[in-house]
Amino acid sequence: MKNILLSHGGGGEEMNELINELIFKYFDNEILKETNDSAILKIDGEIAFSTDSYVVTPIFFSGGDIGKISVCGTINDLCMVGAKPLYLSVGFIIEEGLSFDEFEKILSSMSKIAKENDVKIVCGDTKVVPKGKCDKIFINTSGIGKIIHKIETKNIKNRAKILISGDIARHGSVIVAARDEINLESDLKSDCRSLKDIVMALFENNIYPQAMRDATRGGLSAVLNEWANFNKIEILLNEESIKVQDEVMGICELLGFEPYDLANEGTFVLAIDEKDSKKALEILKNFNENASIIGEVISDKNSRVILKNPYGVKRFLEYPKGELLPRIC
Amino acid sequence: MKNILLSHGGGGEEMNELINELIFKYFDNEILKETNDSAILKIDGEIAFSTDSYVVTPIFFSGGDIGKISVCGTINDLCMVGAKPLYLSVGFIIEEGLSFDEFEKILSSMSKIAKENDVKIVCGDTKVVPKGKCDKIFINTSGIGKIIHKIETKNIKNRAKILISGDIARHGSVIVAARDEINLESDLKSDCRSLKDIVMALFENNIYPQAMRDATRGGLSAVLNEWANFNKIEILLNEESIKVQDEVMGICELLGFEPYDLANEGTFVLAIDEKDSKKALEILKNFNENASIIGEVISDKNSRVILKNPYGVKRFLEYPKGELLPRIC
Repeated sequence: MKNILLSHGGGGEEMNELINELIFKYFDNEILKETNDSAILKIDGEIAFSTDSYVVTPIFFSGGDIGKISVCGTINDLCMVGAKPLYLSVGFIIEEGLSFDEFEKILSSMSKIAKENDVKIVCGDTKVVPKGKCDKIFINTSGIGKIIHKIETKNIKNRAKILISGDIARHGSVIVAARDEINLESDLKSDCRSLKDIVMALFENNIYPQAMRDATRGGLSAVLNEWANFNKIEILLNEESIKVQDEVMGICELLGFEPYDLANEGTFVLAIDEKDSKKALEILKNFNENASIIGEVISDKNSRVILKNPYGVKRFLEYPKGELLPRIC
Repeated sequence: MKNILLSHGGGGEEMNELINELIFKYFDNEILKETNDSAILKIDGEIAFSTDSYVVTPIFFSGGDIGKISVCGTINDLCMVGAKPLYLSVGFIIEEGLSFDEFEKILSSMSKIAKENDVKIVCGDTKVVPKGKCDKIFINTSGIGKIIHKIETKNIKNRAKILISGDIARHGSVIVAARDEINLESDLKSDCRSLKDIVMALFENNIYPQAMRDATRGGLSAVLNEWANFNKIEILLNEESIKVQDEVMGICELLGFEPYDLANEGTFVLAIDEKDSKKALEILKNFNENASIIGEVISDKNSRVILKNPYGVKRFLEYPKGELLPRIC
């Protein structure tokens, strides 16, 4: 039994074995083991609910893998609305022939991150499709969290400071480099990580951002343009305060990308009341010294994002467009 | 704009357009339109949480399509634990080149079923993968429901009657017939449907089954063997009480399948206290006249399922095994 076969997804004895002997080994909790059609949970108050499918290639990359990203990504989406992540579902779509070793590495990675974040994987589904009908493995995770302090995109106010939790574009750069078989001579790693501890640290210090958003597909440009459009606000950014690692800048220059457009998987943007912004920055810097205040909301009209370079020259930071980079997450 | 392009999944302007102009047109509700990273919901008491990925081929089949099945399937999983389905997430993985027409037909189908069942699609995700990296479209739905009366697999008691809500194996037969390009000269349709109204009708009549399970992949055999193993019970079935349509039997005989092993997508098995079984049957028959009492739990040991034919001859109904039929749902 070295590779996943079609019969592992057939709903019969082999699927039962795969679930009981392998999947339950890693996702071990009482709720999952009840084997009901749905998990039964008890949460009081408001809840957050989010979903993401992960199709990243390669499935193992510097700083993470599709398992890690699939758990972190949904944890992060829950955190961004001010929720404490509690429960995840997982749906595997596996290409016939995936090795058990690879699958087990992915399960192990998911289990580790879930445990570190005190999150339980409570329901799941496994499909196997014939060779050539998907690419190794796709993973969907959906998540439920308990709202600690509700944070919504619509609440960004004029004069809010815009902060970022670290340097940008590392995940996108790692993936594009792996994809194009550039030989990375650095130890550049994806920023893929859970943001739960950072968000909880802000809350413990009574910092409640007006809005938060992890800058995944479409990068910083997409988040800020979405915010500008949704709230009809104008955001001014100082280019020099946005940190980009040298290796990332090298890859961007080589391949013609803007770091603002490239995906992050553990870096988030915050809109914060000015009075809280310095304290927030201090807290963010405990996790990544490249965190910084990168700009502010300068008007409650116009729906646009402006980038000012060190010489004072301004340009629009547009919504990313075209085929950025498929299968980044 | 006739086909889905890679750029529709890139996180940039094109994806934004696809979501705002097409997806929001069909999944129109206030929660989704807040465009937060997670939907924010309020539910009191116990909740049910379930997930399924759908990879069925062909994506349009007699009696349904991948959109209908993806909404009904998760609604049904929630109903099976005694929950009223309330909220769904949807994750699309689309192969570059899928036509907008086909995608819109799927969205329309999902929207229709969700509305009929008073279920809101509150969060979603869209990925596009290059041609040849998936097959047209895969859909994950996860769902949240409010527990009305908790129903769990572990509660099946000795002497319970086993009921089924209709004739079996229609979905599996329709898919295998479409797959092998048999020319169906009948109007055989998949049983694909939501079970919400049936379960709610049982509850309204104070019928609370000990357990319920929709007999999808692995069919009736898988459900009953899982129940027998989990509860260490012995189940005796009367073969002649299990209805199979003639066309279904024909397909099974032609292709060497057992109808007990073939998938259903809107037919469920119930374990019911003897005193309630006749009333339950009456209610089930209002929805499908082929509903019947098919057997009973005859022992609280042995973990096995026995099938008795009209001549009184008994055999074990085994767990299905091998490559039943890939991509049935």
